[in-house]
Order: sequence, then structure tokens, then C-alpha cells
Amino acid sequence: MTLRSPAIEKLVHLARDRELGPFIELARHVEPADLADVLAALADGERLRVVRALPPELSAEALVEIDPSITTEMMVALPPSTAAGIVEELSDDDAADVIGELEPEQQEAILREVEDRADVERLLSYDEKSAGGLMTTEVVAVGDGLSAVEAIDAVRRMADEVGDFYTVFVTDDQGRLVGELALKDLVLAAPARPVREIMTPPIGTVSPEEDQEEVARTLQRYNVPALAVTDPQGRLLGRITFDDVADVIEEEATEDILRFGGTSGDEELGARWEDAVRSRLPWLCVNLLTAFVAGAVVLAFQDVVSRIVVLSAWMPIIAGMGGNAGTQALAVTVRRLALGLIPAGQAVRVVTKEALVGVINGLANGIITALAAVALGQGWKLGVVVFMAMTGNLLVAGLAGAFIPIILEKFDVDPAIASSIFVTTFTDVCGFGLLLGLSSALLL
Amino acid sequence: MTLRSPAIEKLVHLARDRELGPFIELARHVEPADLADVLAALADGERLRVVRALPPELSAEALVEIDPSITTEMMVALPPSTAAGIVEELSDDDAADVIGELEPEQQEAILREVEDRADVERLLSYDEKSAGGLMTTEVVAVGDGLSAVEAIDAVRRMADEVGDFYTVFVTDDQGRLVGELALKDLVLAAPARPVREIMTPPIGTVSPEEDQEEVARTLQRYNVPALAVTDPQGRLLGRITFDDVADVIEEEATEDILRFGGTSGDEELGARWEDAVRSRLPWLCVNLLTAFVAGAVVLAFQDVVSRIVVLSAWMPIIAGMGGNAGTQALAVTVRRLALGLIPAGQAVRVVTKEALVGVINGLANGIITALAAVALGQGWKLGVVVFMAMTGNLLVAGLAGAFIPIILEKFDVDPAIASSIFVTTFTDVCGFGLLLGLSSALLL
Repeated sequence: MTLRSPAIEKLVHLARDRELGPFIELARHVEPADLADVLAALADGERLRVVRALPPELSAEALVEIDPSITTEMMVALPPSTAAGIVEELSDDDAADVIGELEPEQQEAILREVEDRADVERLLSYDEKSAGGLMTTEVVAVGDGLSAVEAIDAVRRMADEVGDFYTVFVTDDQGRLVGELALKDLVLAAPARPVREIMTPPIGTVSPEEDQEEVARTLQRYNVPALAVTDPQGRLLGRITFDDVADVIEEEATEDILRFGGTSGDEELGARWEDAVRSRLPWLCVNLLTAFVAGAVVLAFQDVVSRIVVLSAWMPIIAGMGGNAGTQALAVTVRRLALGLIPAGQAVRVVTKEALVGVINGLANGIITALAAVALGQGWKLGVVVFMAMTGNLLVAGLAGAFIPIILEKFDVDPAIASSIFVTTFTDVCGFGLLLGLSSALLL
Repeated sequence: MTLRSPAIEKLVHLARDRELGPFIELARHVEPADLADVLAALADGERLRVVRALPPELSAEALVEIDPSITTEMMVALPPSTAAGIVEELSDDDAADVIGELEPEQQEAILREVEDRADVERLLSYDEKSAGGLMTTEVVAVGDGLSAVEAIDAVRRMADEVGDFYTVFVTDDQGRLVGELALKDLVLAAPARPVREIMTPPIGTVSPEEDQEEVARTLQRYNVPALAVTDPQGRLLGRITFDDVADVIEEEATEDILRFGGTSGDEELGARWEDAVRSRLPWLCVNLLTAFVAGAVVLAFQDVVSRIVVLSAWMPIIAGMGGNAGTQALAVTVRRLALGLIPAGQAVRVVTKEALVGVINGLANGIITALAAVALGQGWKLGVVVFMAMTGNLLVAGLAGAFIPIILEKFDVDPAIASSIFVTTFTDVCGFGLLLGLSSALLL
């Protein structure tokens, strides 16, 4: 990437030096995402001063590219009429996103000053993680009775209000979606050719209630720049474009990684400590419960531990390795499930593979562990015990790491959530049980 | 989504019943991604029979949407001339991806039959995870001396060879990129207006060596459908389009989740067991080494354990909770780093927050644990010890979970990799050290 940093730095300096005239002049020539970086780099007071001075058409586009918490702060700090001016410059989906972050009374204070509030309010009524929450109602649609040249004229009349678009939708006289056209195909068609002959059937349509992840997958699957949102009667409500897809996929990946790491998936990455505690403490308490189960297994074998104290040093080794191997199997399986890569009927094959990988890795690590036990002068019998416990526990790890998420998915529970707590409980309990049980049988 | 499954099921039945005529007829009316699902659902022999019978323009697009390992199998199983026919139907970037998976002699056997092999071979020379590996050389570019109407004519002449496009690039007489145009802006401009007046400066250009993750971020940042790839002289080499972005972001998320789960990030999700062992065993061996360190700490306190055997049941509870809390802090921090959300100078603030979260969670779980110890009749002194050990270990977990990935990133090591092994080593060692050390000081 070229060109990004010098203009950004210049703008930051101008803002800090309160040179707002030259700032605005230069700001006209940078991309919104770059101006967003400038705003993010400023202190709160400087930022507010700049946004007050900027023409709304410049500040609006930058504010949607910035960390949403900063945008919310700005919208609250600005006079409602200035905030409303910014909202009016935004496309309706961005406007709904910005307004949606505010308290009801703040929303009302701003919307009161917005000229055409109906679209924004309608979009606000959808769940923000649904197709309705992603879509814009600003679509380019032409009637199915037109010729190519008439359609281009119709597009020309709509184009100013719509911003960027890549797909022209075709509707019948009831407003029902009957086809779509890449803009390119419309341009390249013979002028007199009826739109009905050039258009293709809609590649896929989604309802406004559809989950955003499903929407993203559909756009990605068909490699199209836009997807139509329709109501149950097939009437065109809006469109979702490619630039939403990357954001959704990233958001879902964040959620999966956080859940996999044992926090609730909706913890904001930059959450305050209070919110982080609220997100994580419940899962730690669940984990504490399962840890007590593992502790109870050890308690049941107190007799063995007291007679062969060195087993207490092997306990974390056997259990920890099981936890690690289980997490490996889990990461692979969770990801395969998330991407829909385990077709129905393949579950047994997946679990079998993971079990096999577990056994092989168990044998390899079991041999090393046994040799270490012998080398430390703890006797070949103990060596046999740790070898068997390690191999057995890594087999269990592979089985549990694949089986548990598949079962959770079957019962419609997100397999990323809590899987790791269950898997490590399994490997702890089995690890301690195998090590201490085998010791009890073979060494006492 | 509507419409997807009935046609797919019909096609699968037709293929299984060897009704290849009706199969081909119906296949012409479904999307490549849907035909890919059909092929994926077939057994190897059935699939080969279908692909042999399908016209190459149908099979080609479907094969790029399918699991790459299946495509590779197909390309090897087909006669080289049939495979070459499929390659010729693909855009050059897809062709390079398909060919790139084959052995050199297989590549040569097919390329020998491909009419225009130069573009594909040039693309093959780039790293598949670079901009060069993503780009297609099939671009729509017009000279900067044209008028709008001349440019549309020029576009019309190129459009057949290029497939879908959304951006028209503008080059000078040296082939250097000087601007770009949304197709829409070209269509809507007055016919006589010079292209030079309508075009905007290129939003960003990347070199063919640029890492794919950086490319994806740039496209996502500017919400554009296509990005130009240029050589050091600024000459246009190709373009990268929005549909590559989602794939890259997904791929990078998979890599992060796998690394976070303790496997090497490049393990194929559907890898054979041999490859999975190869990917995971090295990390398990690293983990075994660190587990021995934790075991050694326990070994150093054998005297305490032998005198208060019940501590062996508390060991996994204190250590396991530390591991879990550390993984939570790690997941959040790794993700913030991956998305570039920790600006320079904020590292201390991030670590402080995680340490604070750790202490609070530690106090809460410490109290529960202490009460449990007292309730189990193990005395209030042991209660105090497990309370202090739990609180201390969760503080360490927060610190390590934030600090270790930030340090790894500073030294240009992917923070997702191996972080979890280091963090759990820390929490194991500290957990055992605190529990057994405090016991030794306060209980003996």
C-alpha cells in the first residue's frame, strides 16, 4: 500500500495545530477510512472540534469507518442538529447502525431533526445481526417491461441517490423481484433488447430475518457483489453488498475464537474490565465445577498418592498433555463445523481419524515419557504405567475433541462454546483415573 | 435461501442413475457452487464419469468451487486433454490455483495441451499467499486519452474475455495505472466527457509480492470491489476482486484458530491422519517439555505433598483454573492483535486491564474454593492457602495471557502460535508453586 500514511500524518498535525481550514481542504482528498484513522488518532477534545468544523458529508463517511464506541461518543457530544446532519449524509443502513448504538432518548433527539426518518426507523426494527440489520433500502431496480436503453435511463435517474451499486434488480409491476442484471450486461446489451431477455433469475434471495452469517455464506458462495432481500411475497426490500461480508466473516471468526478461548463470544474486544469480568466469570465458575470433578478423582486415589508420592508430579504431565491434544482435535473439528465441512454421515469418519491421531501421538509421547521415568530412576514399572496412561489419555483426547463439538452441533449448541471446558474435564478425569488407577493395580 | 436443494438433489439422482443427458441439461441452469455441491456428494467413480461427460465450461466453474483436494484428484484422473480443456475455460487465476496443486510432471502434461499457457505460468511463479497468487491478469483498462463514449466502446470490446468486472482501470500510453472508474460512473457520464475528468486516483495499489492478508485488509478498508496490482514502475499487472477477500479472511481466521488450538496453522482441515500427526506432534513435544517443567515444580515440593496428601487434589483445580483464565485473556489479546486493535503505546493499558480482570475473577473463585475447602472439613488454614493460590494464579494468568502474545508480536512471531503453551506453562508452574509453597510456609 502506498500513499496512506503521509496525508494521515499531515492531517493529524493540522488538527492538533487547530489549522481547520487547511485540514478540511486536505480532508476532501483522502478516503473515508484514512480520515477515520486521523480522527481515531486525535484526543477526544481535538476530535470533537474537528468533527464540529467538518462538512457533514466528510465527517459522516469517516465516522462509519471508525471504532463504533468513538462514533457513539461523538454523536452524543455533538448538538443534535449537527448529529442529524451527519445521519442524513449516511446511507440508511449506516445511519441505522450509528443511531442503533444510542439510548432511546438520544435516538429521538437526533431523529427529530432528520428529514426522512422512516427508512432509518424501519431498519432499526431489525435485529442488527440479521439480513435486515445489514441491508440498505437504497436499491437500483427497473421494471421488467423496459428495453435496455430505457433501463439505463431509469438507472441514470436513480443513481444519484444510491451511492455505489453493481447489480440492477428487475421487478414486476407488484414490486416483486423477478430478475437481476450485472450493470455490465445492461451496458453491453443491444439498446432495444428487452430487459426480460438479458436478466438472469435472482441468484438467491434472503428474508430480512435471516442470520447474518448465513447471508455472508450465500454471498461468498455465489461470488456476487450484492444479494436481494425480499419479503414473503417476494417484494424487493433492500440489498446487501459484498463489503458487509468481510465484516461479518471477521466478526464471526472473532466470536468463535473468543468462545473457543472460554469467554462469551460477544465480549467486546476493547471491553472495560467490568464487562470483561461479566463475560468471563460465569465460564470460570463452570470450569471450577468441572475442576472439582477432576479433583474428586484424585481424592478417590489418595491412598495411592500417599504411598507413591512421585505420582503427584506425573499427574499434571499426563493430564496437561491430554488437554493439549484434545484442544488440537477440538480446534480442527470446531473449524470444520463452522465452515460446514463435515457433511452428514461423515461424523464417524471424523471421530475415527481424531482417535487414530490421538493414539499415534499418545504412543510417541508415551515412549518419551516412559524413558524419562526410567532415566529418573523411578523404575520400569512406573515407566509402563505412564506410557499406558499417556497413550490412553491422548486417545480419549482425540475422541472427546472430535465427538463433543459434533454432539453439541447436533443439539444446536454452538460447538465453539464451552467445548474446551468439557474436553479438558474429560482429559483431566481420564488422565488422573488412568495414571492413579493403573498405579493402584500395577504398583501397589 | 431458496431454490438451492431441490435441483441439487435431482442432479445427484440423475448422476447416480447415469442419466447424463438430462443431467447436463439441468446442470446448465444451476450456479457453479450448486453444481460443485452435486459433484462433492458423488462417489469418486460417479464424479469422474460426470466430469468426463460435462462440457468443460460447466465442469470448470464447478471444480473451482469444490474442495481443492477433490479437484486435484479429478485433474489427475482425467485424460490431460480433457483437463486442459477445463483449464482453458477458467480465468487465469483459478487456472493457476488448480494447476498449482499438481506435481510438476502432471502440470507439464496438462499445460502442454493448453493453448495460451503464458499467463497461467506467470501467475504460478507467485507465492499463492501473495497478491500475485490472488490476482487475475484479465483486467478491463482503457487509455486516459479517451472520451466516455469511446471508453464504453473499448470496454465493450474487452468485456467478453474478462468475465465479471466492476472497475475500469485507466492507463497512460506506457501502461502505467493513472486512475480508475466505477463502471457506473462511466455509464452515467456525458458521452463526450474525457475519461481523465471522470476517473479518480487509484484508491490503493499493491505489489504482487504483498501478503494476501494485507491485500484483504486494504480492500476491506476501502470497501471497493477491486484493487489494482502494479509493478514497481506503476504498470498495471492485474486485479484482485472482492470475492477473494472473504476467502482470505476466512483462511486467516482458520489459521489463527488452529494455531491458537496448538496445531500448526497450515494443517488442512480435512487432512489425512498422517498429515495431522505431522502437524501436531511437534507442538505436543514442545508441550511435553514444558509439562516436565511443571512436574519438576511438584517434584521439588514432594515433602509437602507427602505430608498433606489432599493437596494433590487441589493441584489440578488451582492450575486448571489458571490455564482457563489465561486462555481467556489470550484469546481476547490475540484477536485484538490480529485485527490491529492495539495501537502502539497501549500495550501497558491492555496488560493492566487483563491483570485486573484476573485479580477480580481470582478473588471470586478464591472465595468459592476456600469455602469448599472448609466445607469439606479440611480446615480454615487450607482454605486461606487455596484462596491465596487461586487469586495469585489468576492474576498471573491475566498478566501472562496479555503480555506473552504482545511480546511475541513485537518480535514478529505470530502471537497465535504457541502462546497457549507458554501461558499454560506459566499458570501450571505458578499454580503449583503458589499452592505448595504457601502450604509449606503456612501449614507445615
